[in-house]
Amino acid sequence: MIRSFLTALGGLVLATAAWADDEVTTFTLDNGMDVVVIEDHRAPVVVHMLWYRAGSADETPGRSGVAHYLEHLLFKGTDTLDPGEFSATVARNGGSDNAFTSFDYTAYFQRVAADRLGLMMQMEADRMVNLRLLDEDIATERNVILEERNQRVENDPAALMREQLRAALYLNHPYGRPIIGWRHEMETLDRTAALDFYEEFYAPNNAILIVAGDVTPDEVRTLAEEHYGPLPANPDLAPRARVSEPPQLAERRLTFEDPRVAQPYVTRSYLAPERDPGDQETAAALTLLAELLGGGQTSVLTQALQFESQVAVYSGAFYRGTSLDDTSFGLVVVPSAEITLQEAETALDAEIARFLETGVDAEQLDRIKMQFRASTIYARDNVQSLARRYGAGLASGLTVEDIQAWPDILQAVTEDDIMAAARMVFDRNNAVTAWLTPPMLEVTQ
Amino acid sequence: MIRSFLTALGGLVLATAAWADDEVTTFTLDNGMDVVVIEDHRAPVVVHMLWYRAGSADETPGRSGVAHYLEHLLFKGTDTLDPGEFSATVARNGGSDNAFTSFDYTAYFQRVAADRLGLMMQMEADRMVNLRLLDEDIATERNVILEERNQRVENDPAALMREQLRAALYLNHPYGRPIIGWRHEMETLDRTAALDFYEEFYAPNNAILIVAGDVTPDEVRTLAEEHYGPLPANPDLAPRARVSEPPQLAERRLTFEDPRVAQPYVTRSYLAPERDPGDQETAAALTLLAELLGGGQTSVLTQALQFESQVAVYSGAFYRGTSLDDTSFGLVVVPSAEITLQEAETALDAEIARFLETGVDAEQLDRIKMQFRASTIYARDNVQSLARRYGAGLASGLTVEDIQAWPDILQAVTEDDIMAAARMVFDRNNAVTAWLTPPMLEVTQ
Repeated sequence: MIRSFLTALGGLVLATAAWADDEVTTFTLDNGMDVVVIEDHRAPVVVHMLWYRAGSADETPGRSGVAHYLEHLLFKGTDTLDPGEFSATVARNGGSDNAFTSFDYTAYFQRVAADRLGLMMQMEADRMVNLRLLDEDIATERNVILEERNQRVENDPAALMREQLRAALYLNHPYGRPIIGWRHEMETLDRTAALDFYEEFYAPNNAILIVAGDVTPDEVRTLAEEHYGPLPANPDLAPRARVSEPPQLAERRLTFEDPRVAQPYVTRSYLAPERDPGDQETAAALTLLAELLGGGQTSVLTQALQFESQVAVYSGAFYRGTSLDDTSFGLVVVPSAEITLQEAETALDAEIARFLETGVDAEQLDRIKMQFRASTIYARDNVQSLARRYGAGLASGLTVEDIQAWPDILQAVTEDDIMAAARMVFDRNNAVTAWLTPPMLEVTQ
Repeated sequence: MIRSFLTALGGLVLATAAWADDEVTTFTLDNGMDVVVIEDHRAPVVVHMLWYRAGSADETPGRSGVAHYLEHLLFKGTDTLDPGEFSATVARNGGSDNAFTSFDYTAYFQRVAADRLGLMMQMEADRMVNLRLLDEDIATERNVILEERNQRVENDPAALMREQLRAALYLNHPYGRPIIGWRHEMETLDRTAALDFYEEFYAPNNAILIVAGDVTPDEVRTLAEEHYGPLPANPDLAPRARVSEPPQLAERRLTFEDPRVAQPYVTRSYLAPERDPGDQETAAALTLLAELLGGGQTSVLTQALQFESQVAVYSGAFYRGTSLDDTSFGLVVVPSAEITLQEAETALDAEIARFLETGVDAEQLDRIKMQFRASTIYARDNVQSLARRYGAGLASGLTVEDIQAWPDILQAVTEDDIMAAARMVFDRNNAVTAWLTPPMLEVTQ
């Protein structure tokens, strides 16, 4: 059903693929704050997002989790707002708000009626500089993030395994640390840790304001200059620079055993290049490669491992190119009953090897490109997801031009590009292979 | 021959095992510099050592290798000494000098006639604060350390493997970085990196002076106050604090393939506790465990794998407890011809399992303890190695009392202590197992 729908859309999609058509306006305030306005006048609503170019990978060693901790603390009080009053005010005005922390950024957003935009800016600007943390907030919110870690990680063997895998994937780079933080370091987070991060990174010259919806660039500029304009830039803000990986010279392997594992699986992550400004072609090829290999019912792995040999009940390939530094390309195979993890991995490797020999199926590639064109169109229909794409892209080092060029770059990827990217990325020396399993019997005595 | 010699020594050894008998005097200068004097008047010679509590694990992320780079640069000029003049002066006075960098410390030493001690202090104090680096020194010495890396690491597959193993052993702690540095980071080391490290860590309140030989404590105090006394303490010196490891939840494995490997082997490193001030018992048990398992011809692994099954041509166990933070316990098996790495590893694991069941051979333990008593005596005979033990211990967080108590603590270890330490340390979740091998044939197609 999806396929016929997409086929029907084909003509329209071809005509309007590029995001350059988005009604996007950008400017920069005098204090260095970047502003992106995405117009969409179909409903009297705006999304107001503030993105800081600071995430977990920017944390001081030993303070893992502080970016996310601070994100929580930003919902506490300021000089003029009581703890919790921010979200209560948004709700009272009929809006919703939230925030998220990633490796490369921390972002705050509200969705609200267009005429409340000034109020959102006033409150967001306030907490950029006037945060006031009570002792009880420090302790309470630390317990909250620890409980969040319990729920999301400690109680989930797959999440624990992914942490260990990631720590083994990165030999030097801070992406090896979990966003939520190592528990023993989270337990030591305090006011000083939170405020150090806040004072270093929360400043207009380290922020990107995205406003999307029923608003004009002039209105946004006037309001932004009123509310954000008076905030002082941080003159000591250092250029973003992270440590990079040494050559990785040997695959790492690990077997994560946990009695809570109901469904064992094999996963492998390869270190992989990310989208870089003006240089997104390899990332585009890897994006298509992930779709070709594991992107759905017609993908190479699904066809071979689930339908033909029935070795697997699920298989997939993953790549996310939006990242400041080297990202990863992932594979996963969930074996069928009676199939061992070794058999599943061997089947996966055989299929990857076969793919490297036989190459890309041209029809499948065309179909995937059409899906990307369609999803580009759909994305334009959702102003919030569009705002998020711009924010994540900009906070990960890309320019508006890079973000707008991305759909065309995806469409221009050739079969040869994909095979070159596959040969480059499938280097086991750059990979961690992990088995997730209930405790296995010892093979040696 | 060694055994009968040790047996003959037995009586003497038992009577004089403790290092507390060393003629050791300690005091601290007003600027915070710790001083240790070890008297030995048998020859008119002194060893003058200056230890900084700063090593590669104290480096800023991204500047790996800077501790060692700075060590090289300290042989360049000061306001009053030309580049190279330091060592030339030592040599002209009939002495020898050198320096070394480790994870936890950097140390400089000279061995010279006792009446030249003041001159050594004068020059060493001078370069603690008056280093002057020419542009040509910066570039030249960076090439020197890069060439050192080429020779020691890049040209040695076993060294490359050990780097990858170590990076995988430590998920969070800077011991995962090589002392010499990652090449891509060494290439970026510059004057700023070197001077930042110098200014942060090279100060009397971060230094330990060890003088050993034909000198009295009063003489050392007078000279130290004259030469080191005027140097200002660094008031901003932070307490030594490193990040620690999260729980390690899965063994990591890697196979390092390199066509230059002539002799394949299997090695495994377990994360292991180090000697802590006032708490050295577990480290002592691990020290004896390493000797029992792999310390020589009569050790468990050598007997079983080399003599009985002849699976191996070499086997060993390694532990070094002198470390500021968690160290490692290592095992290695070099298989005989026709024995695969898997067979060697399986045999190793079986032997470890058997040891955990059968326990310690009391006679072997007695023999090892006697060897330790003997080596304590021998060590006292070598004033330079004694000075080095004090320096390494103090720079790794131990006290003089800890260092002097160590031989007695080793002697007090029981069979139960060793078995408890073995059960604790042999946790595969805390380990990396590595195979070093020439390129292997693919087992999957």
